[in-house]
Amino acid sequence: MPETSLGLDLASKKLRKRQDYPYRLDYRTRWADNDMFHHLNNPIYGVLIDSIINEYLMTRVGYNTTSYPRTALVANTYCDYFGQLQYPGMLELGLRVVKLGKNSVMYEVGFFKEGDEVVKAVGGFVQIWVMRDTGKAPLEGLEPHVRAKLEELMQLGLREKNKL
Amino acid sequence: MPETSLGLDLASKKLRKRQDYPYRLDYRTRWADNDMFHHLNNPIYGVLIDSIINEYLMTRVGYNTTSYPRTALVANTYCDYFGQLQYPGMLELGLRVVKLGKNSVMYEVGFFKEGDEVVKAVGGFVQIWVMRDTGKAPLEGLEPHVRAKLEELMQLGLREKNKL
Amino acid sequence: MPETSLGLDLASKKLRKRQDYPYRLDYRTRWADNDMFHHLNNPIYGVLIDSIINEYLMTRVGYNTTSYPRTALVANTYCDYFGQLQYPGMLELGLRVVKLGKNSVMYEVGFFKEGDEVVKAVGGFVQIWVMRDTGKAPLEGLEPHVRAKLEELMQLGLREKNKL
Amino acid sequence: MPETSLGLDLASKKLRKRQDYPYRLDYRTRWADNDMFHHLNNPIYGVLIDSIINEYLMTRVGYNTTSYPRTALVANTYCDYFGQLQYPGMLELGLRVVKLGKNSVMYEVGFFKEGDEVVKAVGGFVQIWVMRDTGKAPLEGLEPHVRAKLEELMQLGLREKNKL
Repeated sequence: MPETSLGLDLASKKLRKRQDYPYRLDYRTRWADNDMFHHLNNPIYGVLIDSIINEYLMTRVGYNTTSYPRTALVANTYCDYFGQLQYPGMLELGLRVVKLGKNSVMYEVGFFKEGDEVVKAVGGFVQIWVMRDTGKAPLEGLEPHVRAKLEELMQLGLREKNKL
Repeated sequence: MPETSLGLDLASKKLRKRQDYPYRLDYRTRWADNDMFHHLNNPIYGVLIDSIINEYLMTRVGYNTTSYPRTALVANTYCDYFGQLQYPGMLELGLRVVKLGKNSVMYEVGFFKEGDEVVKAVGGFVQIWVMRDTGKAPLEGLEPHVRAKLEELMQLGLREKNKL
Repeated sequence: MPETSLGLDLASKKLRKRQDYPYRLDYRTRWADNDMFHHLNNPIYGVLIDSIINEYLMTRVGYNTTSYPRTALVANTYCDYFGQLQYPGMLELGLRVVKLGKNSVMYEVGFFKEGDEVVKAVGGFVQIWVMRDTGKAPLEGLEPHVRAKLEELMQLGLREKNKL
Repeated sequence: MPETSLGLDLASKKLRKRQDYPYRLDYRTRWADNDMFHHLNNPIYGVLIDSIINEYLMTRVGYNTTSYPRTALVANTYCDYFGQLQYPGMLELGLRVVKLGKNSVMYEVGFFKEGDEVVKAVGGFVQIWVMRDTGKAPLEGLEPHVRAKLEELMQLGLREKNKL
């Protein structure tokens, strides 16, 4: 991952490349993804953002939705659209962590079309980790193994600077 | 609609009331709206934002998705979550226009639960109107009848001030 | 509810009326319900079938998805389409129970458009109630209060005849 | 593809293998596919059935949703569920044509989980091809190149026998 700034302004987001994202998955589009204009309906981007983030948490970090002692609340979702995607076709998504706070994480997902270098959308969300039983953010902050796996998704240069 | 400021900061959004929104519709929740945590999945808020905005455009403004000479592109979506909603139950959504530009509109939707005064989420999107055949924003800007119907969704005091 | 036969052949289904269904709810359509052909995408009928059936179970029968001692597995889904529905617009759905077995229930849902007498689709599913902890159908069959509430959705004349 | 009977009774469907289906695609599951019980919501099977069938028509048969002179109406959908699938994970779907009529096609889709031989569900739909402009089924029946590509999805032994 290059040591560039990966700014959060629109002009910077429009220049995102696949290699800006340390974790990448492909998603086959579905008939129901297209809306009346024959392109991906906007909320589908949110469905895919949820999917790649939680797939990372569940398959790489050890999180699960049934018994894990902590759970994450989404405080804010966002997405900027630069182009269009459509069914049929395969999408390539990339995930990075933008900011890490004591118990909060800001994720960013880039959307690419198979065989096309230009980023089509950049979106994500901010989540806050709380204890499953109390619903409160723990004083000790993120578990060390979780923080370590999330830091792997940050640019090296940003790990110290970008605190939520 | 009160002549308050309706600021876009988080603290102001958390205080939204139904009467801050000039156009309101109720939506019955569906089984598939709930995610594994038994509450509305975040992208469902985006589905409902699309639905109330386009219902206003189609039933009050004369827009249609098949032959209308202009069409709208969504540039950005956003949502802040303050509480949770769930199936079964009826939702009450309110719509207002925050900003009106030459060819652009910023909408805001407030989410309420039947019988509960506290706003659960505030989200929306920015759309840009372009000509259906060229995909370009017209020099003359929004059609006057469209602008008039969108201004009905703005607070009186904001119609001159909030330009995109 | 009239004491007619309500046969399960296609010709009979095409003649369904709202009053053939003892439990009825309206559902406001959503932007994402329409597919590329500007009509309801077929799986949305399944979403709505799930929704009205479980709304009846949760609000009238005392069922819940978190702690109820029994849970229901869907063995089979079906739907016949006679016309088209679309966003924007309000749908009116009707629910009846077709057959009641020892631990199984066959439901039927009729789809109507506000202001239109002609049925647009008839679909449903067969569910099998099992114990939440063992996943097995109990020897004693459906709980009496559940059976009673489900029989209220059957035509009187069918309560004895239509056993699964 | 083996020359076995591939009967449509439940017992036969439960024995389906991947190799019973001439066209196969994998689909990555998404967060929103799971319902409150942490398994695929039933209508998602319908979404995926739509997706693999139309992907075959659009990428192998030359069909498109915007200008193709014919379009297909779905008359009936069905699905039998034998097991459960869930996010996260990759699904493998197989498609075959069960019956070919003058203008109608009955499809069947088998659902498999990556790394598991046992079929989890078998569903599909019946579609009727009509002229886009009149909405009527043409007297001459399916176009020869369409029929040829659909016959490739039938078992050899069934091409003459299974007429709708």
